[in-house]
Formats: sequence, structure tokens, C-alpha cells
Amino acid sequence: MEPSASNSMQPDHCLEKAHMEVHQVAPPPHRSTIQKLNSRLKETFFHDDPLRQFKGQPLEKKWILAAQYIFPILQWGPNYSFKLFKSDFVSGLTIASLAIPQGISYAKLASLPPIVGLYSSFVPPLVYAVLGSSRDLAVGPVSIASLILGSMLRQEVSPTSDPLLFLQLAFSSTLFAGLFQASLGLLRLGFIIDFLSKATLIGFMAGAAIIVSLQQLKSLLGITHFTKQMELVSVLSSVFHHTNEWSWQTILMGFCFLVFLLLARHVSMKKPRLFWVSAGAPLASVILSTILVFAFKAQRQGISVIGKLQEGLNPPTWNMLHFHGSYLGLVVKTGLVTGIISLTEGIAVGRTFAALKNYQVDGNKEMMAIGLMNVIGSTTSCYVTTGAFSRSAVNHNAGAKTAVSNIIMSVTVMMALLFLMPLFQYTPDVVLGAIIVTAVIGLVDIQAACQIWKIDKFDFFVMVCAFFGVIFVSVQSGLAIAVGISLFKILLQVTRPKTVILGNIPGTDIFRNLHHYKEAMRIPGFVILRIEAPINFANTTYLKERTLRWIDEYETEEGTKKQSSIHFLILDLSAVSSIDTSGLIATNTSLSLTLQLVLVNPVGEVLEKLQRADNDRDMTRPGTLFLTVGEAVAALSSTMKGQSSSYV
Amino acid sequence: MEPSASNSMQPDHCLEKAHMEVHQVAPPPHRSTIQKLNSRLKETFFHDDPLRQFKGQPLEKKWILAAQYIFPILQWGPNYSFKLFKSDFVSGLTIASLAIPQGISYAKLASLPPIVGLYSSFVPPLVYAVLGSSRDLAVGPVSIASLILGSMLRQEVSPTSDPLLFLQLAFSSTLFAGLFQASLGLLRLGFIIDFLSKATLIGFMAGAAIIVSLQQLKSLLGITHFTKQMELVSVLSSVFHHTNEWSWQTILMGFCFLVFLLLARHVSMKKPRLFWVSAGAPLASVILSTILVFAFKAQRQGISVIGKLQEGLNPPTWNMLHFHGSYLGLVVKTGLVTGIISLTEGIAVGRTFAALKNYQVDGNKEMMAIGLMNVIGSTTSCYVTTGAFSRSAVNHNAGAKTAVSNIIMSVTVMMALLFLMPLFQYTPDVVLGAIIVTAVIGLVDIQAACQIWKIDKFDFFVMVCAFFGVIFVSVQSGLAIAVGISLFKILLQVTRPKTVILGNIPGTDIFRNLHHYKEAMRIPGFVILRIEAPINFANTTYLKERTLRWIDEYETEEGTKKQSSIHFLILDLSAVSSIDTSGLIATNTSLSLTLQLVLVNPVGEVLEKLQRADNDRDMTRPGTLFLTVGEAVAALSSTMKGQSSSYV
Repeated sequence: MEPSASNSMQPDHCLEKAHMEVHQVAPPPHRSTIQKLNSRLKETFFHDDPLRQFKGQPLEKKWILAAQYIFPILQWGPNYSFKLFKSDFVSGLTIASLAIPQGISYAKLASLPPIVGLYSSFVPPLVYAVLGSSRDLAVGPVSIASLILGSMLRQEVSPTSDPLLFLQLAFSSTLFAGLFQASLGLLRLGFIIDFLSKATLIGFMAGAAIIVSLQQLKSLLGITHFTKQMELVSVLSSVFHHTNEWSWQTILMGFCFLVFLLLARHVSMKKPRLFWVSAGAPLASVILSTILVFAFKAQRQGISVIGKLQEGLNPPTWNMLHFHGSYLGLVVKTGLVTGIISLTEGIAVGRTFAALKNYQVDGNKEMMAIGLMNVIGSTTSCYVTTGAFSRSAVNHNAGAKTAVSNIIMSVTVMMALLFLMPLFQYTPDVVLGAIIVTAVIGLVDIQAACQIWKIDKFDFFVMVCAFFGVIFVSVQSGLAIAVGISLFKILLQVTRPKTVILGNIPGTDIFRNLHHYKEAMRIPGFVILRIEAPINFANTTYLKERTLRWIDEYETEEGTKKQSSIHFLILDLSAVSSIDTSGLIATNTSLSLTLQLVLVNPVGEVLEKLQRADNDRDMTRPGTLFLTVGEAVAALSSTMKGQSSSYV
Repeated sequence: MEPSASNSMQPDHCLEKAHMEVHQVAPPPHRSTIQKLNSRLKETFFHDDPLRQFKGQPLEKKWILAAQYIFPILQWGPNYSFKLFKSDFVSGLTIASLAIPQGISYAKLASLPPIVGLYSSFVPPLVYAVLGSSRDLAVGPVSIASLILGSMLRQEVSPTSDPLLFLQLAFSSTLFAGLFQASLGLLRLGFIIDFLSKATLIGFMAGAAIIVSLQQLKSLLGITHFTKQMELVSVLSSVFHHTNEWSWQTILMGFCFLVFLLLARHVSMKKPRLFWVSAGAPLASVILSTILVFAFKAQRQGISVIGKLQEGLNPPTWNMLHFHGSYLGLVVKTGLVTGIISLTEGIAVGRTFAALKNYQVDGNKEMMAIGLMNVIGSTTSCYVTTGAFSRSAVNHNAGAKTAVSNIIMSVTVMMALLFLMPLFQYTPDVVLGAIIVTAVIGLVDIQAACQIWKIDKFDFFVMVCAFFGVIFVSVQSGLAIAVGISLFKILLQVTRPKTVILGNIPGTDIFRNLHHYKEAMRIPGFVILRIEAPINFANTTYLKERTLRWIDEYETEEGTKKQSSIHFLILDLSAVSSIDTSGLIATNTSLSLTLQLVLVNPVGEVLEKLQRADNDRDMTRPGTLFLTVGEAVAALSSTMKGQSSSYV
């Protein structure tokens, strides 16, 4: 697509006709440093302008709005109707039937007493109903946070030999998780969870699901001496080194219930109207298996059961929080990791369903709600809770309209705590294992993985790293590796920004990438480059060297055909959103040794800095600054023709 | 600047006339995944296309070019003339007169025997003369690398109680520094040093200069019990807790020579032609002070002297390299930090003078040269060396033409090592202290700091952090803090990319930022946003929420005047250089709930991914994809008028 002699005239000609008047680059409106800092801080921390509804309201109205802002229940509460209640009641009962068996199972996953899982399904939903702004979130303990909490604490304290200390550390970690979550929201640093990209999360969740399922082999096979490690290799070697402990009764029972639960899940996935099949199946399994064990006295056949559970509501635990001594570091670290993971799940779930029903969820406010819920939870025998994906989906499908469904669930769990505890005494562990496996299997999202492969190979790579990191190294390392790679990619993008060489689309004054638009043509005597990133210290060297190569390549190509040379280097700065001192110094020095450097359309901030950096160069001097590439080319090619009539 | 009813018609009208034909967005040329990966890797690691000179050459010529590429001496060697030699001879002698006293001083700064400084001024310059491509670099030990090497090793080993081990560790660190530098060059990871921004370096160097000067208080005041700490507070407290050790003879002598050296420096700075005044002053001071001490037997008056130096050339030290045991970690860490710092200085110096004389320095090749120089140095009694800023400036001013001046310097140092060592026996430490202070004082660049304050307040903040980090915490922490803040700023820019609302400049089809160009006007019914960053996981949430706020603000503003609503959301994607899966999912879902989403000019990669992500949506369907904002507005406003004649 080299321009022939006659063609190359055409755009020039056309441009000159089209632009009789040349538009000036305007200096940006003046703002002081304080004003700039102010607007920068606002864009960074208050970009969603959460207080805009307060503007221009009378004082009384402002108080009401503030109360509604802090307690969203005041927004929808007054308009609550019996019709809404009917929907919420059904969905509340549905998620309660899931929450009870899952609560017990997840507490065991975290190496905590099963009853703590039920306590955690009672208080936090009530707190969230008052403070939370999502209408679909079903709050309670979740698999991944339970897994991480358990595995991190087990590294230093044994839950079997020192159960009281382990429990104290779990509650303390929950307190720190809550404080961390709430302060992220309060300081409006919610964007930190954005650094867990979708690809990272898919890989991480799939890996975690496999790790969780592998842990269930202990109860599914009836092994008593199981490894404390989490990663694939040691779990599998532990499983096959204890084949003598495998119990056929346990395996048979586990297999039957697993098949039943998976079938129920399959039915509900095929027909979303039948959501209650998979929602009720866990509770049905628990009841059925408990009856079976009780009837056949199967606990004597080597089938292990939960054992006695204490009746009654959550005991206060503020006196069990543990802030001193050698475990403080462990507790803070565990709180941080579980806090950020559970926050990510909760916010993602909230946003997903808000998008489906077309309402807004304020991320920072949600963080405060989830954080406070965990702070209060840690003083009332609850461990880390958040919005659970699977239960929220059931809640949504069951027709939940408001957070009242959480209250219904909470009340149901309360009833269970008060009156039904003796019934769980004979519930076999193997059924809890089957329930967990069925619950986490949905976290392996193969379809999404295929989609990512199709769209972006690098994202796929990040996903695979997260997945293998989790299953072969550890849950935390897998996550850290994936986040590290994602950040490295961003830094690499900044270090190697795109530069594009532009050509004119004949008959217009549009300039587009020469290597993308075949009809675009070079204009002899000009190298027109577009820089597509902020110019800063990390990429100035690259940009300088890359520009020199563009010029070099152009000259070599041109040189083979006719004796022409480049007079102007036009840099289109439209897409350069900012520039720093290193960038300025580079722009002002070596680039323009032999060519005349022309800048096009710098944005306000960049223009201002260019001017301040270079008092000698008058920016308004004609011929160095233009509003569009077209105008620059038109104006400069006429001067070029005037100067050297031998050329063109 | 609200558009009045009559005004708002004008741009529409003009646009429709100007664009009779609408240009299609072309699909990008097809490339396979391998091709894409290939070109991506090339842009990342071989952006300067170092092998382009080899293209199309006959095989024999290729061999010659390859040899010249590896040994730049073969490039300029054959054309070397007596005229060039005269210049190089003068400059070589000049820098030798600096290198001898500075070499001794810097070795003492690193707690190494003074003679090691001279060894390091003999072998490395010879290696660099063969491998290096800079013509002005004067190679040898430098102050900052010496300071860091000494301070890092002193944390674990005492140079006074175990001098042999200390020396072994210093040579081993030098080996690792060299290996690290060479491998950065070989793996083409040279861009890592770009992450030390100019602001960071200015703050860091000023802080280091102050730390180095404070250390000299030991010799300048004649204190014998001096702290091993480096930071300001403990050094000052150590100085004032040992006032009884202050020796007036030492202070007097130090003061006189310091004034003499600073005056000489001042003269040379005022008149660059008199460069030899400051270049010769250190050697003159050494000679004069040695004679004084010898004549007055001043070493008995409490003036400490260097003592006996071993005559002879560098002994081999490959048997002193230390790879095992508990010090390996220390050695590797020290090698890494000193390696990257000295590399940064060497490359920066090389680039500065290359730019002055208008020749190219290949960063990655220089890294290999400096790295090999240190690897060879570590086996011949040399510690970390690089291109020194002050000596290179003298070299340049003295008229050096090629690396032969390094050879002249090296030969001169060799002569000194062979014959002059006994003369240094009575050289007082206080004069070496004065030489160091004079040398590092030039690292405090107040003018550059003021310039940075004027241009970019954030860069200034980074600089101040580096400065105070170095003087109050430690040299390494100061650097780490500054780099951390710089990276955080980049990440924040990615997380909070600029979005700009565009308006039409009347009478043209140019669209520019409404808040910058006062004459730009809104087009009723349209919200036109320009996104100025790659869309990725870290900013999708922000972009979504910010876009909703733009629309909201627009509607509020419009609503107060007349009953109009927005029909189209035009996203100008020209500046979006890439997009990832998270970004795609966001683009495809919630943004376009009530408005019709129109995309303008996506670049090739983005277009391709948009298409692959969304098979349902036909990208070529008319009215969803345009080449310019002007064409989109023209085409859509005509359909809008056709549909709802009541509007406008």
C-alpha cells in the first residue's frame, strides 16, 4: 500500500481545501494546585459522587436521607407490603433449608465446632438486613473463606489438641476481617478488590473447589488419620496410604447421597423453576441419613457422626477475642486474607444480582455493611460470613424481593438452634461431605474458562496460574501468584505503550492506523505517530527508541524508491492523558534533532505541563501545535512547498 | 456554555452536510495467535530491533558486523588516528588524577582496604574499553554503590574484626552484581531500570550524598569511635557524644583542604574550560597533605593516615568467591541492590553524553558490558564499578573522543600501583574525607528539584519521600519507598483512567473535551464519552460507575431547562489500546440498559475481541460502529429525527 506519486498528492490537496481556517489549541482553564488536588482526590475516591442526592435539599430532608443512606432498611421498609412478604417468606424458608446443613458443613471445613456454623447463620443475616443494600444477597458462612480460615489457623494451632485457643483465634480473625472490610469501605479504598480480575477469580475458585472436595475424601471414605496439608499431592498420598482405614459402609452411604444431591442439582439447573429440588435436597439428605443412622445404629459400624450439639442461641464471645502475644500476627494475617476474599465474593454476588434486576449497589457502602456484620458476628460466636453465591442464586430464583428473606432465614435458624439440636446428634459426617462437594462443584466454571481462552490468551494464562497455584502450592499463594501476574501485565502495558503510525484516508481528513486501514496512505515528508498511553518515567526511554525506529524504517522504505526525506514528526497526543517530569524532559530533548516536532491536541494537563517545562519555547508559536492532525498536515505542507519548491 | 436552542442545531446541520458518505470501520488484518504473540514479544523485548543492520547483508559482512556488535572497539579501532589519541591522552591523564584519590576514598567508604579502590580503577576500564559503546564513560568505583555495598555487608560482618571474610563477601557481591547486570542485558530486561524515575533518582542521590558526607565526619573530625549506623539521627548523636575525641589538628587540616577543593570545584563550574582545576585539585591535595604529614610527623599528633599499601598489580581473587553457607543470601541481596544502582548510574551517564554528542547507546548492550566488567573484576580484586558521573563529565570536558581515554587512565593507575604505593603511606584520612564530600556534593541537584516542583507536584512528593527515606531510614528503604510510590501512582492511573465528555466545535466535525474547549458544544440527545486508557479488570467497575454518573449529571442539567432525554451513548474508543475479558463483559452488559450504545473507532485488537466476545451482536450491523464521532453523530441524528419527529 505505498502511495504512488499521483495518489500521494490527493490527500494533501483535499486537506487544504477542507481547512481554510485553522483552529487554535486552547489553553486549559486555569485551576490552582489545591483545586487540581481536590478534583483528583474526588475522582479517585468519590468518583460515584455518593452524596449527590443531598445537594440542594432542605436540612430536614438531609437528615432523613442520611439515615436512609446509613440504614437502607429505612428506604424500603415504609413501603413494605404483604405481597412482598409472601415472596420473601418462601425464599427465606428455602435458603434456611440450605443454610442449616451448609452452615454445619462449612464450620467443619474450617475445623470449627459445627454449631458455630449455625450461630453464623443467625446473627449476621439480621445485621445485613438492616445495613445492606442488596436485595438478593443470602448471608452466611461460605466455603472458600471457611477453607482459608481453617487452613491458615491450622498452620500454627491444632484444632483437636487446643480447641479453645483455635476458637478464640477464629473469632479474633473474624473481628480483624470485619474491621479491615469496614475500613476499606470507610476509606473508600474499595477498588482494591478490583485487582482480583475475573480470570483470577475463575481460576482461584475452581482450584479452591477441588481443594475443598479433596478435603471431603476424609469423611467420604471414612479415613481417621488424614493429612493436615491442603495441596493435591499430599492429600492424594494420604488417601492412598490409609486404604486400610476406608470404610465400605461410609463409602456406600456417601456415594448414594452424593448421587442424589448431584441429580437434584442437575434437575434444578435444567429447569430453574424447580430450584426447590436442589435447595431442599441437602436438608432432606441430612434428615434421611440421620434417621438411617439412628435406625441401624450405624455409628457403631464405623460411620462417624456429628455428636451432641448444645441447644440455645449464640453465647457472647467478646471475652474470647485475642489481641496479645505471639498469635496476633497470625490473627491479623488470617483476618486480612479471609476478609478480602469474602468481601470479593460478597460484592461480586451483590453486583451480579443488582445488574440482573437493574438497581445499584454501592461497593463502598456494601463493604461497610459486610464489615460491621463480621465485627458484630465476632462478638456473638460467629466466624467470617459474607454473601454466598449459591444460596443467593437460590434466594433470587425463589423470588426474594428484599432483605426480609434474610430475616426469615435467620428466624428459622434460631428455631433450629433452640429446639432441633438433639436431632443432629446422629447426622453422619459423610453426608456433610457430600453436601459440601455438591455445593462447591458449581464453582468450577468450565464454560467461562473456554470463553476466556477464546477472547484473551493472557487472561487464560493468569487463570491457569491461579488454578495450579491453588491446587499444588497453597490457596493463598495461588491467589498471590495470579494477582502478581495481572499487575505485572498492567505494568508491562505501561512500560510498552502502543505507538501507531497514522495515514490519511483519501478524500477525508481522517487519520488512522496504517497497518489496520489498508486504504490509509502516508503523506510524504511526514511521520505521524499517535501515542496511546500516559507518558511517564517507565516508558520514556522506550518511546524515544521506538520513535527513532519508526523514523528509520520509514526512511529505509522511502529511500529505496525515491530521494525524499522526512521534514516533520507529528505526535498526536490526544490519547496521552498525563505526562510526568521524565516524560517532559524526553519530549523536549533528543526527539527533535533533525526533524521539526509538531504536537497535536495535547489534553489540558499535558499542555499546561509542556508550557511550564519549557519557558523558552513559545507554545503559541505558529507551526508547532495544532488541534487536529489534518490541520497540522495541511498547514505544514503548504509551508514546506513554499520553502523547497523542488520537493513534491 | 449551555447550548441554546438555535445553537444546538448548528453542529448537526453542518455535520450532515460534511458527511455524505459514512466510512466503515475495517476489520483488522487477520493474524494467528502465534503471530500476535510473536509481535507482542518483539515489541516488548526487541523494540529497538537491534539486528536490523544485519538484514540483507552477505554472510561475510554479517560475521564482521556481529564481531563489531559484540566488541564495539572493532568499529572505531580501525579508524583510530593520532589526532584522536592526543585528545584521549590528555583526558585519560586528567581522569587518572581524579581516579587515584577517589578510588582510595571510595574503597574506604565501602570499608574495604584503600588499595582495592585502585585495583578497581585498573582492570574494569580495560574491559569496558573493549566491550562498551559509550565514548565518554569514565569507569571505576563510585560513591553510592560503595556506600551501599559497605553498609549492607556491615550489617552482618564487621570489616575490622573479620576483614578477610568482609573482603570475600565484597568480591562475591561484585560477582553477583555483574551476573545480574549481564543477565538483565542478555534477557533484554533493561527496562527494569526505567522504573527508577528521574524524581526518584534526584531525591535518592541527594539523600545518599548527605549520608555519605555525614559518614565523612568521622575522618574530618578525627573521631575514632564512630557509629556503624548510617541514618542521620544516630550519626549526629554519635558525633556529639564523642566531642572529646575531636582533634583540632585534623579539623584544621580538613577545613583547609575542603575549602581548597570546593573553591577549585567552583572555578571549574564557572568556567568549564578550566575543568583541570577541579580535576587536578584532589591529587594536588593528596600530595600536599602527604608532604605536610611527612614533614611535621603529624601522624603522631593524632592525624590518622592510610598506612602501608602493598605494591604490585591486582592479585587474582577467584578463589575468594564465597558461594556457600549462611552468607549466600546476604551476598546475593547486596549484589542485586548494588548491581541495579550502579547499572542505573552507568546507563544514565552513558545516555546523557551520547545525547550531547548525538550518538546512540544501546541500553541492553551496555548492561552486558558493565556486567561482564564486574564479573571479570570480581576475579581480579575489584569491587563494584560503573560509569561515574563526575569523572565522565571531566572526561567529556577534557575532550575524550573514544574509550582509549579509559585505557590511558588504566595504564596510569597501573604505574601508580607498581611504583607509587609507598608515597601514599602518609596520606591523611581527613583529606580523603574532604575529597569524598566535594565529589558527592554535586549529587544534590537543587535546580532540578525546583524544576520538578514547578512541573509536577506528585513527582516532587516521590522525590521528597526518597530523600527522607534515605536520610532517616536507610539507603535501600528510601529507594524502595520511592519506587513503591511511583508504581502505586501508575496503578492508580490505570484504576482511575480519564474519561472525557466531548462536544462539537461549531462549524467543524471536530469533537473535543467540553471542559477544556469553551466553544465546544453538546449535541442534544447524545452523551459522547472518550475513554483514555486500556480497559481492564482494575478499572471496569470504575468506568461503569463513572459513565452512569456522566449520564446522570447530563440528565439533571438538561432536565432543568427542557424536557429532553438521551438516546445514544457514544463511546470513543480511539485511545483504548487494549481490553481484557473483564472489560469486555462490562462493555457488553449493564452499560446499555436504557441507551443505545455506539462505539467509535476501536483499534484492531479491541475490535477483534469485541467481535469474538459477542457472537450474537453483529458488529457490522448499521448504527453501532463508526469510524469517527462526527460520522456517528451525523448518521444517528438523522435516524433519530426520522423516528421521533416531536424531538428537536
